[in-house]
Amino acid sequence: MKIELNCDVGDSFGIWKMGNDEEIMPYINMANLACGFHAGDALNMAKSVSLAVKHNTLIGAHIAYQDLAGFGRRKIVYSLEEILAIVVYQMGALNAFCKTYGKSVSYVKPHGALFNDMMDDELIFKAILSAISSYDKNIKLIILSSQKNEKYKQIALLYGITLILEVYVDRNYHDEGFILSRTEKDSFITDELDIMQRVETLKERGYITSKNGLKLFLHADTICLHGSSEKNYEFIKTVSRLLNN
Amino acid sequence: MKIELNCDVGDSFGIWKMGNDEEIMPYINMANLACGFHAGDALNMAKSVSLAVKHNTLIGAHIAYQDLAGFGRRKIVYSLEEILAIVVYQMGALNAFCKTYGKSVSYVKPHGALFNDMMDDELIFKAILSAISSYDKNIKLIILSSQKNEKYKQIALLYGITLILEVYVDRNYHDEGFILSRTEKDSFITDELDIMQRVETLKERGYITSKNGLKLFLHADTICLHGSSEKNYEFIKTVSRLLNN
Amino acid sequence: MKIELNCDVGDSFGIWKMGNDEEIMPYINMANLACGFHAGDALNMAKSVSLAVKHNTLIGAHIAYQDLAGFGRRKIVYSLEEILAIVVYQMGALNAFCKTYGKSVSYVKPHGALFNDMMDDELIFKAILSAISSYDKNIKLIILSSQKNEKYKQIALLYGITLILEVYVDRNYHDEGFILSRTEKDSFITDELDIMQRVETLKERGYITSKNGLKLFLHADTICLHGSSEKNYEFIKTVSRLLNN
Amino acid sequence: MKIELNCDVGDSFGIWKMGNDEEIMPYINMANLACGFHAGDALNMAKSVSLAVKHNTLIGAHIAYQDLAGFGRRKIVYSLEEILAIVVYQMGALNAFCKTYGKSVSYVKPHGALFNDMMDDELIFKAILSAISSYDKNIKLIILSSQKNEKYKQIALLYGITLILEVYVDRNYHDEGFILSRTEKDSFITDELDIMQRVETLKERGYITSKNGLKLFLHADTICLHGSSEKNYEFIKTVSRLLNN
Repeated sequence: MKIELNCDVGDSFGIWKMGNDEEIMPYINMANLACGFHAGDALNMAKSVSLAVKHNTLIGAHIAYQDLAGFGRRKIVYSLEEILAIVVYQMGALNAFCKTYGKSVSYVKPHGALFNDMMDDELIFKAILSAISSYDKNIKLIILSSQKNEKYKQIALLYGITLILEVYVDRNYHDEGFILSRTEKDSFITDELDIMQRVETLKERGYITSKNGLKLFLHADTICLHGSSEKNYEFIKTVSRLLNN
Repeated sequence: MKIELNCDVGDSFGIWKMGNDEEIMPYINMANLACGFHAGDALNMAKSVSLAVKHNTLIGAHIAYQDLAGFGRRKIVYSLEEILAIVVYQMGALNAFCKTYGKSVSYVKPHGALFNDMMDDELIFKAILSAISSYDKNIKLIILSSQKNEKYKQIALLYGITLILEVYVDRNYHDEGFILSRTEKDSFITDELDIMQRVETLKERGYITSKNGLKLFLHADTICLHGSSEKNYEFIKTVSRLLNN
Repeated sequence: MKIELNCDVGDSFGIWKMGNDEEIMPYINMANLACGFHAGDALNMAKSVSLAVKHNTLIGAHIAYQDLAGFGRRKIVYSLEEILAIVVYQMGALNAFCKTYGKSVSYVKPHGALFNDMMDDELIFKAILSAISSYDKNIKLIILSSQKNEKYKQIALLYGITLILEVYVDRNYHDEGFILSRTEKDSFITDELDIMQRVETLKERGYITSKNGLKLFLHADTICLHGSSEKNYEFIKTVSRLLNN
Repeated sequence: MKIELNCDVGDSFGIWKMGNDEEIMPYINMANLACGFHAGDALNMAKSVSLAVKHNTLIGAHIAYQDLAGFGRRKIVYSLEEILAIVVYQMGALNAFCKTYGKSVSYVKPHGALFNDMMDDELIFKAILSAISSYDKNIKLIILSSQKNEKYKQIALLYGITLILEVYVDRNYHDEGFILSRTEKDSFITDELDIMQRVETLKERGYITSKNGLKLFLHADTICLHGSSEKNYEFIKTVSRLLNN
């Protein structure tokens, strides 16, 4: 089984730069591109799509609540019809840049608070599925891999949408199989050797280790790297090599 | 020759309402829908597209500079690559809502300051053409009908884009064939009988009258009604009947 | 005991108008002015302050989460230091307009979701008190009058801030003394005679009636009118007369 | 004559960082703090003011057109009353953070396009003076030092406002005494030795050299350092030492 590597790129806004997109892009399979709601203005999106196309990287719509000052990490209580509308809006905006290259958005990855809310609230999960389904059933949706994968897949099937199961190798997991919140201690794993070992264990044996040492067997279609490692393209390169060997 | 009637609809934002979209929609052929930059948030766009689809009205992307507080009427000096990017972004966002109904954006109409800048600056005109062309050559572009129609058409041809020539029947024209700026005295014609007469003259004889009484022979694919008349669906209905007889 | 009448005014944004501020202002004692976060751009604020000064109306900073598209009604999870900062920012911005007339902000009224969160979460209540206290201890804070008034007053005392207790006469109350959420059925009372009767009962006998008919004795320094009645200055005038007799 | 050193600090927005504010602050006399319109959200403003207060640095309101995506560098055509309103709004918001420390805004420095427009258009200059004057006549205004200093000073006098004359030592000047536009070749001087020499010449002999070698005698109350040097606190430190010797 091949595990793809997805990374957040295109997270600059206006004059403010974030991440070394040009260095990272050649080593990742899937580029999560911000769509203007938590990061990424129109011009930055144009540049990011151009870069992804150049490296033949799959393009994902990194959709979010509309909150630049909070980088999409603050929970905002939207109605379900508002969520449906912002998903369609952001997918369409990003897809337009893809279309100018004869490409299209391959998948959707909710960002920050919207991602958490999707995993916690089935109605929000369904609103996102409904938005994608009505727009283009070829677009997949990334969710957090957990013990509930089968349940989520069955729901997605009703909307004709394929899920991509994601495991975080630089975030700590509770024994129940969920990642620690960004505000909890030890939420992030920063030691690069630790992260590489997690990648290998996941790839070879199919599990990662919870913060209490429990083996969590989690199906992984893709892993995500971010945080400090985002700035380190040498490390991204190494993990990429691990995954592709 | 049939002259279509286009109107600005979907100009609400958040809780703030503008215009009687539901009453106007049945009587217009072309609905210029705001795309979130000068008006129209995602949820309002979803509702506006739904309404236009219901009445089988052609949907146009009413694109603008990003300036909610100025309703897109303030000139902003964007670079050409920024203009290209914001055109793609807005077209794509609106088109996504259309696509959920199996429809697509039929035309682009720049709004406010962007419209004026397009007519004044050939580089901006070309940036807009380039954006549309790279996205979807079936999408047309509305420009102001003038003595320069042929020149504009030849440029558009290079990008594979068809122009729609628009005449304003509720705005006063200079003798040179350009409309008075919104800040000039007598810029708007508010007398409804005057407007109706202008519609008839244009339809039957092919000209409108400048503020000094000069006959301006202008090709009209479409006319636009806005301002005070936007709120008056009875009047829109009457003009619609005039155009369709 | 005199009960003051406070109303939301200054809720326009850019080109979008809301409420009949000019007609309402002469009849109210306290004007809650939006500060640019949920409504009210800088130019509208300048005009609203000018209008309030002309009628010698007390000016309150109607502060909110930063969310124009949601009119400040969507709950957003801010950190406490973010709340402190947005309260200072908004108070200061509005106060600057007051200062150009030799006036100053008299009170703060949190709006929408921030108001609800302040009443539900003591830490948010304290963050708001702390912001006001560090800025100007002469500025009062409006909270919802309830059985917990004494507790809230004791907390406010620690920050040197005076509270203004508010009762809603056009909203329905639970038996426990809290107003029904905006999304609940019968949340708003729209019958003007009902509202007037509630005003009289409150003024003469000191209670309002819960939706189940329970008498809720609530101290009222001020009442708030909004919703449909906001558009009806004749009604505002009548209520104003009731309160002043 | 003492020449003060002013720098743009507080230019971060949300999660996006810009500049090494903590390292620079101890070496500058005047901190130009963004007010939320081109950079600087409320929380970043709170932190920037706290830092400036700690180092006893004068605090200036770095006011701008409302354009985060363009960092305030794009010309936007505001009406004069809009300019007046945004100046009051931004001064007041920043001043509120100062007031929580018993301090206040010392001066106003228009940023980017607003700065250029102020120097080019006397009506805009007067609108800014009028805003400051009505708010607090103790607040000074930074303008570009040029041959027209006396004319500008006489206008400012009518509003009771003191001007601070600024010379750029890291920007190239036309022979007529104006700086090259940011888009022109050689607009910025990046060689640090060159910049230091310009500082010394200005301090000792009262002139800087135009790009064609002309001596421009310009009164300098303050010099501004930005661009690449903003990131180099060692260099800021050196220039600071030069100015203070």
